[in-house]
Amino acid sequence: MRQRNVKNKEEIIKNSKYFLNDSENYKGHWQEVFGNTNPIYLEIGMGKGKFIIENALKYRDINFIGIEKYDSILALALKKIPENLCNLKIIRLDAINIDNVFDKEIDKIYLNFSDPWPKDRHARRRLTSPVFLKKYDSVFKKDNIIEMKTDNKNLFSYSIKSFNNYGYYIDYITFDLVDEINNKKIENITTEYEEKFTKLNNPIYKIKVLKCKK
Amino acid sequence: MRQRNVKNKEEIIKNSKYFLNDSENYKGHWQEVFGNTNPIYLEIGMGKGKFIIENALKYRDINFIGIEKYDSILALALKKIPENLCNLKIIRLDAINIDNVFDKEIDKIYLNFSDPWPKDRHARRRLTSPVFLKKYDSVFKKDNIIEMKTDNKNLFSYSIKSFNNYGYYIDYITFDLVDEINNKKIENITTEYEEKFTKLNNPIYKIKVLKCKK
Repeated sequence: MRQRNVKNKEEIIKNSKYFLNDSENYKGHWQEVFGNTNPIYLEIGMGKGKFIIENALKYRDINFIGIEKYDSILALALKKIPENLCNLKIIRLDAINIDNVFDKEIDKIYLNFSDPWPKDRHARRRLTSPVFLKKYDSVFKKDNIIEMKTDNKNLFSYSIKSFNNYGYYIDYITFDLVDEINNKKIENITTEYEEKFTKLNNPIYKIKVLKCKK
Repeated sequence: MRQRNVKNKEEIIKNSKYFLNDSENYKGHWQEVFGNTNPIYLEIGMGKGKFIIENALKYRDINFIGIEKYDSILALALKKIPENLCNLKIIRLDAINIDNVFDKEIDKIYLNFSDPWPKDRHARRRLTSPVFLKKYDSVFKKDNIIEMKTDNKNLFSYSIKSFNNYGYYIDYITFDLVDEINNKKIENITTEYEEKFTKLNNPIYKIKVLKCKK
């Protein structure tokens, strides 16, 4: 996401009760953070937070953790979270270090409009590259579940191949999420990016994949 | 493919040395038909034949078999085949009966611009449905290799899921074959349909999948 400097971002982050510093300290103890044994869903690269906040509001029996790398974006998201959302936490993290923060305690990962890293020589940096899929293995509690949305067809085709080659089962796939929503009334919570792309009539791709623990 | 009646189609078919009647008789004996032990590639639904004829001309050490259901289309294709193409045969067949004609003797199947059967209740009729994938298992000699091209995004997403769920490994995938050809100089022999769609700037999807014999 393009960064715009946000005034007082350090203060906003420091004062938010939703933000957890030093997230590595909670590795293996995320149930204790939430004080219950409900499932925990992660969004890697939550951007300005619309998707994860609306999910947390709608699904009170699921715990949500939003991950973002940049302070300016973190601050924008934290400012938007309403009071009394007990099932949401936000952390600052580069996804490459995800296995330092979670240990077999996550039930689902959301990847929404991730950086496509279009150049072939940067393919390893894509959040669906084998480098990351390997890290996710150690993060998931039981079966792996990943839901991905993107408007980037090259990232999407790369990810399909990567999931398939890594042993993931495709549970759901569409090349036109908006059309599916209109025709089949499937449920969908949008991100800020998604709203913008949809207004431009760009197709949104979605895939949900599963991998069972051996 | 839309059918146009072709005059003298029965005669064209009867007189063509490339056409084999009663293809069930050759089950298990296709090497003898070609008189060599070269690999055999099938195109299911060859249409007017441009793709398979150009392949046969280019790859003389591969045997090609074109399958088509309709006499009018068969006649159009047969008329186009040049002299002395020893590595090409054409048969009349509804793909649902493919396992009555081949028994562990095919090395690759091409599916080009197959009927998308857009209605959900007709999904079983798609050439990439589990019904057909099961039949292909008995047709392949050793490892299964399927190459598919289509301009239909719903057939493509359905097929990706179907291949994945059936245990196929995605070897290659693109959502924009023309772009790949221009940028990466990959080899591509077009079909009649493909030429038409490409002129309209419709994207062409391609996938190549593999499944190893256990």
